[in-house]
Amino acid sequence: MWYSIPISFAVLALLTVLILSYRQTIFAYPSGGGAYIVAKDNLGVSAGLMAGGSLLVDYILTVAVSSSAYLFVLAVFLLIIGGGYQWMTGNIHASAPAYGIAIPGVTVFLLLKAFSSGCSALTGVEAVSNAIPNFRAPAERNAAKTLIMMGMILGSMFMGISLLAYAYGVSPKAEETVVSQIASAAFGRGFMYYFIQTTTAIILFLAANTAFAAFPLLAFMLAKDRFMPNMFMVRGDRLGFSNGIIVLATLSALLIIISGGDTENLIPLYAIGVFVPFTLSQAGMMKRWITRKPSGWILPFVINTIGMLTTLTVCLIFLFTKFSQVWFIFLFLPAVIFIFRKINQHYQDLADELRLDITMDKPQPKGSVIVIPVAGITQVVRNSISYAKSLTDDVVAVYVGFDDESVKKMEKKWEEWNPGVRLIVLRSHYRSVVRPLMKFIDTVEWKKAETDHVTVLIPQFITNKWWHNLLHNQTSLLIKAYLFARQDVKIATVPYRLKK
Amino acid sequence: MWYSIPISFAVLALLTVLILSYRQTIFAYPSGGGAYIVAKDNLGVSAGLMAGGSLLVDYILTVAVSSSAYLFVLAVFLLIIGGGYQWMTGNIHASAPAYGIAIPGVTVFLLLKAFSSGCSALTGVEAVSNAIPNFRAPAERNAAKTLIMMGMILGSMFMGISLLAYAYGVSPKAEETVVSQIASAAFGRGFMYYFIQTTTAIILFLAANTAFAAFPLLAFMLAKDRFMPNMFMVRGDRLGFSNGIIVLATLSALLIIISGGDTENLIPLYAIGVFVPFTLSQAGMMKRWITRKPSGWILPFVINTIGMLTTLTVCLIFLFTKFSQVWFIFLFLPAVIFIFRKINQHYQDLADELRLDITMDKPQPKGSVIVIPVAGITQVVRNSISYAKSLTDDVVAVYVGFDDESVKKMEKKWEEWNPGVRLIVLRSHYRSVVRPLMKFIDTVEWKKAETDHVTVLIPQFITNKWWHNLLHNQTSLLIKAYLFARQDVKIATVPYRLKK
Repeated sequence: MWYSIPISFAVLALLTVLILSYRQTIFAYPSGGGAYIVAKDNLGVSAGLMAGGSLLVDYILTVAVSSSAYLFVLAVFLLIIGGGYQWMTGNIHASAPAYGIAIPGVTVFLLLKAFSSGCSALTGVEAVSNAIPNFRAPAERNAAKTLIMMGMILGSMFMGISLLAYAYGVSPKAEETVVSQIASAAFGRGFMYYFIQTTTAIILFLAANTAFAAFPLLAFMLAKDRFMPNMFMVRGDRLGFSNGIIVLATLSALLIIISGGDTENLIPLYAIGVFVPFTLSQAGMMKRWITRKPSGWILPFVINTIGMLTTLTVCLIFLFTKFSQVWFIFLFLPAVIFIFRKINQHYQDLADELRLDITMDKPQPKGSVIVIPVAGITQVVRNSISYAKSLTDDVVAVYVGFDDESVKKMEKKWEEWNPGVRLIVLRSHYRSVVRPLMKFIDTVEWKKAETDHVTVLIPQFITNKWWHNLLHNQTSLLIKAYLFARQDVKIATVPYRLKK
Repeated sequence: MWYSIPISFAVLALLTVLILSYRQTIFAYPSGGGAYIVAKDNLGVSAGLMAGGSLLVDYILTVAVSSSAYLFVLAVFLLIIGGGYQWMTGNIHASAPAYGIAIPGVTVFLLLKAFSSGCSALTGVEAVSNAIPNFRAPAERNAAKTLIMMGMILGSMFMGISLLAYAYGVSPKAEETVVSQIASAAFGRGFMYYFIQTTTAIILFLAANTAFAAFPLLAFMLAKDRFMPNMFMVRGDRLGFSNGIIVLATLSALLIIISGGDTENLIPLYAIGVFVPFTLSQAGMMKRWITRKPSGWILPFVINTIGMLTTLTVCLIFLFTKFSQVWFIFLFLPAVIFIFRKINQHYQDLADELRLDITMDKPQPKGSVIVIPVAGITQVVRNSISYAKSLTDDVVAVYVGFDDESVKKMEKKWEEWNPGVRLIVLRSHYRSVVRPLMKFIDTVEWKKAETDHVTVLIPQFITNKWWHNLLHNQTSLLIKAYLFARQDVKIATVPYRLKK
């Protein structure tokens, strides 16, 4: 048992170095200095992507590991509730003050894990550096204070538990956590034991919560630089910001299912996934000091160097001692970076394609013809024609008839109604509505595309009860699906709200 | 074993009466005389719906029972393949000649079941009566011929198997079918045994196949009378006609999953579900003869009466002897009829709402204003403006900016470009694009709705690779989702095909 004490002190030293080193990053990057930004800024895009990709995967692992460590079903529920809660209240501004509280939780839990499987974790440090602009002004000072406070809480909790474990003679077991053993030994299985166990469960929830706050932020930064899909950039709108949360929840749930809830083996991978960006970030800071050489740069440079060497050493230890659980990083990290690059290339191609010569490329109006498929003479058709005639004089109504009788009846009624719009009647022998309609639109395209925009008007019933949707809009959907597959036809959806 | 012979003769007599009775229906209703139509025509809508609802549920049971009777997984695959095949080639005209072949299968299988759990089945009879117009001309003569041929094939196969079973001393077992036992006894477990087993498996497939052909047809008839959703009426278009098949496959798969593949208990329910419409249909024919009294109506009337009494007796036998497995019909039949009525009421309300006074209600064009949300100055924006200006002179571009810098830059660039369209700039402090946009559209609505139609143009990227969709169109989707929830805004989707 004696060696738990030196290990604890080593972890504490690591924590101190890291906090001091990252404190400098906060002041150097007051607008947000996560590993992605610092590495990209100082070491180039590839290093940045390596740090960013590593962290993104790590957040997924955080949620998976912390969700599946305890009772599996409960954890999934917590994940779902947590995700759902975030989705509903998902506003980075409102939840920012919670950072300082949420982070200790993360790392307490993770340091307990570290006690058994090496010293990993500390993503909270990264989360604070990334989220500086979300702190109250003066942001960098408050972020640095949070960081140090976090380090002190973490350190004292961790040392306390280590010493207690030593005092009670408790060592890690697969079936019972250290905290559970200590609590059980200290208080018996009474009120306090369950209080501490419940608290630990809540801490687990908070660990996942930190990842849920940090993942969308990092995804946003990568999306802003065009390495991830646009959708992660829509931050302000609830539905939009939740993209990151949904993706994180889905991927980590998948990971839990694939690993069958047994995520113990993921911990070394998880650890190396944290220490790679730490190392890159601090190497970036070293480069920065050497390049800029501000007055008194030697001490900060030394601190960052010690930090970098420490985390690099941890990386190498994991790599050599747990290669069998860690080799996967050599597959997924290049894969993630490849995807980043591929997405970036696509957006660059797109920008080239959409670029506009401001002096030459002016809008060029053409004529316009509007096609309205009609199934009879109703208020909906009247509504559509009224709208179409407000846009152009060239409006055509199209009716698909299955037999002579219905065709004649329709033609006669249309003439009587005389809405001021031509009616084209198509005969369909095989009861298909869509095929003759598409052929007709082909013909219109072929005749008019040079001089006119061709628009197809589709009425859309807005129903009062959701199940009424099953009773309407099916043909509209069908026609839309066919039209979407074409290049050049514009589709205008004209809503018609039903009263009943 | 001796009693298997009289039971067999009873079943044969039942079959003969039914075939003769239905033969008369075919000639009375040459355009299709299923139980739904005959009952509705002669006994009123309620009787028709009872027959139709009963049959629809029965087709679902047919697929569930015949799919799960043999090896469960294989059967589900057959169902999926069968459903998929029907979906791809799902054309009632092409598959109609297969009726005569498919139907013996159904009923052979079902009569084997009948051997153990009473005499049920015979949906094939119903399917032929419903599908008369799909036969080659002279349709009713060919349908009647098919019916009699079917009866003879069924009868001789059934009698043959019964006699063989008696000769070999075979009785039904839970773990092995009668056919399997006979085949095994007659040929040993050699080539012929597996040939017959394979054939039986194919017959199972065909049994499901008949339901797959009959269900959409009946659903079409009910939809035509506005008792089922419109979507079942779209027969000619592949995607449309497959609605019936998809719904049938889904519901029967659900039924198999709910019952855990153990569909034995469904057989009495299934039987009563067939005999209720048989009874109603023949009662309808009786009413018809009494009402019309054509020359020589007495004999047909007597035949239909005997048929009706026979099927009614079977119904009552099931009801009294197997009430515990059959009581469910008193729940689902009223429920199905309630749903039919509810749907019908909705469509009637709709028709009232959409009815148009042909002399008074003419289209009334108004002015038109088009709103184009823009995120920058690109070819897409140029494309949208070109289109908008082809429709109206009143075009407004809206830009949502997050900070002063981007807003000023956009305003300056827009002025330089000078596309002939006003730019309205909205400032968003919370990085929301949608909320300020919706507010702006509210204002436009409020100002203009009286005199103008308000249209919002949304560009839609048509991508070359499916995964590129993940990189585009997210904001468009978001805006569309918000706009769809509103009553009065028209949405025009302007496609922009990407080259790369």
